[in-house]
Amino acid sequence: MNLRLFAFVGGNAGMWRVARMKTVVGEPIPEAKRLNIVPGEGFQNDRQASWVLRGITSNDRYVVRDEKEQLVARQPGLGRPEAVCAALIPIRKNAAWWSLPQDERRKVLEEQSKHVAIGLQYLPAVARRLHHCRDLSENEPFDFLTWFEYAPANESAFDRLVTELRASEEWKYVDREIDIRLVREPA
Amino acid sequence: MNLRLFAFVGGNAGMWRVARMKTVVGEPIPEAKRLNIVPGEGFQNDRQASWVLRGITSNDRYVVRDEKEQLVARQPGLGRPEAVCAALIPIRKNAAWWSLPQDERRKVLEEQSKHVAIGLQYLPAVARRLHHCRDLSENEPFDFLTWFEYAPANESAFDRLVTELRASEEWKYVDREIDIRLVREPA
Repeated sequence: MNLRLFAFVGGNAGMWRVARMKTVVGEPIPEAKRLNIVPGEGFQNDRQASWVLRGITSNDRYVVRDEKEQLVARQPGLGRPEAVCAALIPIRKNAAWWSLPQDERRKVLEEQSKHVAIGLQYLPAVARRLHHCRDLSENEPFDFLTWFEYAPANESAFDRLVTELRASEEWKYVDREIDIRLVREPA
Repeated sequence: MNLRLFAFVGGNAGMWRVARMKTVVGEPIPEAKRLNIVPGEGFQNDRQASWVLRGITSNDRYVVRDEKEQLVARQPGLGRPEAVCAALIPIRKNAAWWSLPQDERRKVLEEQSKHVAIGLQYLPAVARRLHHCRDLSENEPFDFLTWFEYAPANESAFDRLVTELRASEEWKYVDREIDIRLVREPA
C-alpha cells in the first residue's frame, strides 16, 4: 500500500536528533530533542511527545506539465545514505491566500515568486516531500509540513534555498513558520 | 467558528428522507432511509448508521477570478425554505486524474468539460456545497461529496445538470459515483 499519511512526533525518541529549532514567524512550538516519523494511520497519541504534527501527501496543486516532468526527472528519493541532514518546516498561510482563486495563487507562487524554478535549482542535492495538513481536520496548526533531506556539504545551499523563498511575494502570505533542523543519528 | 467538516450519516434518522439512491458507476453503498448531517468534529460513530461519509469544505482548486466572481454573485445559500429537495452525490476519480498536473486537470474540467460554465447556468436555482474527502485520511471511499438543494419545480433542471456533467470528458475519470436524492421531511 502506498502510504500517504505521516505523523511527525517531536520528543525524546526517533532516529533524527533535533540540531536546532527556530520560529521564523508566528507562534512557536515546544522544544523537542528528537523526531520520530510514523507512517500510516497507526500513530497512537504519545504522552511523552512534545508535539505531533500530521500531514498527508496529495496531488500537485500548482505545477504544470513541463515543471512536473523536470521535477520527476531530477528529484531524488528520501533515505539516501549520504543525506544525514534534514529539515522539517511547518508553515501556515493566511486567510487572504486561501481566498484567492486558483489562477491568482498560481501567479503569486510561480510567475511572481518562482517557487518551482527556485526549487529546481537545488535538485538533486535536496530531496523533498510535501505533506498537506489543512484539510485533515478543521483545526490543524499548520497548512503544510515540508520534509527535506540533504548531505552536510549541501547545508549552505539549503540555507540559500529557504532564504530565497522567504524573500518571495508568496511568503508575504505565510503567517506561521517553524524551521527545525535535524541530523540522522540513531540513538 | 466557521465549520468546514461535515458527517453525512445514512440510516434511520435525520430530517432528510431518502427518496432514491442510484449507483451511477462503481461499488454501491448500503441502502438508507434517512440522512442526518452532523457539522464539526463532534460526530461519534453511530452503530445504527448504514454509512457515514465525511467531507471538508476547502479552497477553490480550479476557478479563476472571473468565474469565482460570477459564482459568488449568483450562488444561493443552503437552507432556503422552498428548497425541500436535495441530492448528495459522492464521487471518486481515478489515479489517472490525480496524477495529471494542475494545468491539465483544469483543461479537462473547464476548457473541455465546461464544469463551471454548466453549473453557472443552474444558478440561483440550485444551491451547492462541495466537500473534499481525499485528504482527510489515506483510505476514504470517495474523493468528493457534493450537496445540492433546490425547489421541487427545479428537479428536472437539476437532472439536466447532472446529465450534462456525466456526459463530459471530466467524467471519464470518475470511477465511483452514487446519486442520492432526498426530501426535507422532519420525522
